[in-house]
Amino acid sequence: MSRLGTRVCLGLDPRPAAHPLTDPERLGAASPWDPAVARAVVRYLAAVLEAVSDLVAACKPQAAFFEAMGPAGYAALAEVTALARDLGVPVVLDAKRGDIGSTAAAYAEAYLGDGPLAADALTVNPYLGLDTLEPFVAAAVRGGRGLYVLVRTSNPGSRDLQGLELAGGGTVASRLAERLAARAAELDADAQGYTALGAVAGAPEDLAWLREALPRSPLLVPGYGAQGGRADDVAPAFDARGLGALVNASRTLTYGLGFADAATVDEVASLARTAAAAMRDDVEAAVAARVTA
Amino acid sequence: MSRLGTRVCLGLDPRPAAHPLTDPERLGAASPWDPAVARAVVRYLAAVLEAVSDLVAACKPQAAFFEAMGPAGYAALAEVTALARDLGVPVVLDAKRGDIGSTAAAYAEAYLGDGPLAADALTVNPYLGLDTLEPFVAAAVRGGRGLYVLVRTSNPGSRDLQGLELAGGGTVASRLAERLAARAAELDADAQGYTALGAVAGAPEDLAWLREALPRSPLLVPGYGAQGGRADDVAPAFDARGLGALVNASRTLTYGLGFADAATVDEVASLARTAAAAMRDDVEAAVAARVTA
Repeated sequence: MSRLGTRVCLGLDPRPAAHPLTDPERLGAASPWDPAVARAVVRYLAAVLEAVSDLVAACKPQAAFFEAMGPAGYAALAEVTALARDLGVPVVLDAKRGDIGSTAAAYAEAYLGDGPLAADALTVNPYLGLDTLEPFVAAAVRGGRGLYVLVRTSNPGSRDLQGLELAGGGTVASRLAERLAARAAELDADAQGYTALGAVAGAPEDLAWLREALPRSPLLVPGYGAQGGRADDVAPAFDARGLGALVNASRTLTYGLGFADAATVDEVASLARTAAAAMRDDVEAAVAARVTA
Repeated sequence: MSRLGTRVCLGLDPRPAAHPLTDPERLGAASPWDPAVARAVVRYLAAVLEAVSDLVAACKPQAAFFEAMGPAGYAALAEVTALARDLGVPVVLDAKRGDIGSTAAAYAEAYLGDGPLAADALTVNPYLGLDTLEPFVAAAVRGGRGLYVLVRTSNPGSRDLQGLELAGGGTVASRLAERLAARAAELDADAQGYTALGAVAGAPEDLAWLREALPRSPLLVPGYGAQGGRADDVAPAFDARGLGALVNASRTLTYGLGFADAATVDEVASLARTAAAAMRDDVEAAVAARVTA
């Protein structure tokens, strides 16, 4: 973020049918899990990554869309991860994993260890309890990686559990944030005061209190662009110095306006570069306005 | 369950280093994600599956342990899934997935669709909200599959979120159970009165109220055997007819006492058959005692 002057996270949510260059039908693929589809997706995403590597602070592959392509898709996730890291683009793997004990440790080993799927950060689900996050925290601290714990999302039903009011005051999400803040207080921080224990913060109306409640946690803010978010909406996720958050966009940067007409991956790359530069400038301007104000 | 007279679920949590026949070091593998390890794991689990296919009602591969073996491990998960289904053993994929909107739909497509990883049932995490379960419900209903939603787990920190007391009374888990019961009431039931919307119920002390709160939901009860559960502990998960739950054991049936000394997969298979028969009899006896009482 500091070196490149960008707070943009490039969401990589491959939807093969959304572009002629990866569309299973046009590729003559037998199914969406035909390896030819995964290969076309890797070419598509590689072109985007190469085109925007100096405009984004990180990329965020969404595991679900790779898993939907079967074993070849999972291998494609490893390829895209390796490529991004080779380009110097940190990888936030959006896999929302969570389980207990040795199972959580297996996920931590898979995604925060040294294997072919190892990322720089991982999104995790806290529903099973704070103890279930510890194998991830340990792996992150050990390897200099990060975690983003789901706290508040922006979907219509997010209040069903996250928003429940507690007998002792506050909500499930606010209690979780308190617990995460307490845990982050025990971890080493970087020069900016941030630890490996971050949070996913989806809803614009929740960014201000989450930023305050989690002073040592970087925030991952999905939903800029196609999901309806604007730079002004996400500005409250940043601290007074303009630090502490990463703003993700997926569709806007990979399947946005005009992309469907691109006949080659070079044309896709050029569109992605334009979109990423515009988003970077938009977010930087909103953050600068906030820091100055 | 009815046809074979067993309520046992065979947990498949491959831990390559836990057995000489799959140990990366003994195999001369370069790493835990060397494809040779995944191949050895498939041979090991295939032998177990073939040996116990008439003693278990289902099997439950734990995705984390396959993912920890990298892309070859993920392909192994597809192989094991296909093999189990060929043997007539329904597959409950324990992947605890959960995400919003089209991402949830991608997971549902991957694991409850027609692809190489399609299972008969999937465990899912509800933290993001009830709306995020709908793509899974739709896929399950459409394809005659099942879901097991995480409600209460047995780990020490399970009370951190699941056990929080609500302002309106009850806990997060009990509120979730009410919501799931209401949703299940809208779904078609089978001849026994059960729907596609099941629940994961981990802690013995919670089984009785969950069975009552979720009359139309099959329960998945992990933790028999090595995790400390006994047949008497899990009996409250069953209804008055002795139906409505599946009891899982992993270590006991795949890496139990004496397994480490087995020099061939045939010896492993024989030990697994003995262990599965003993567990089946133990659970059947406890359920019969309960039904008679």
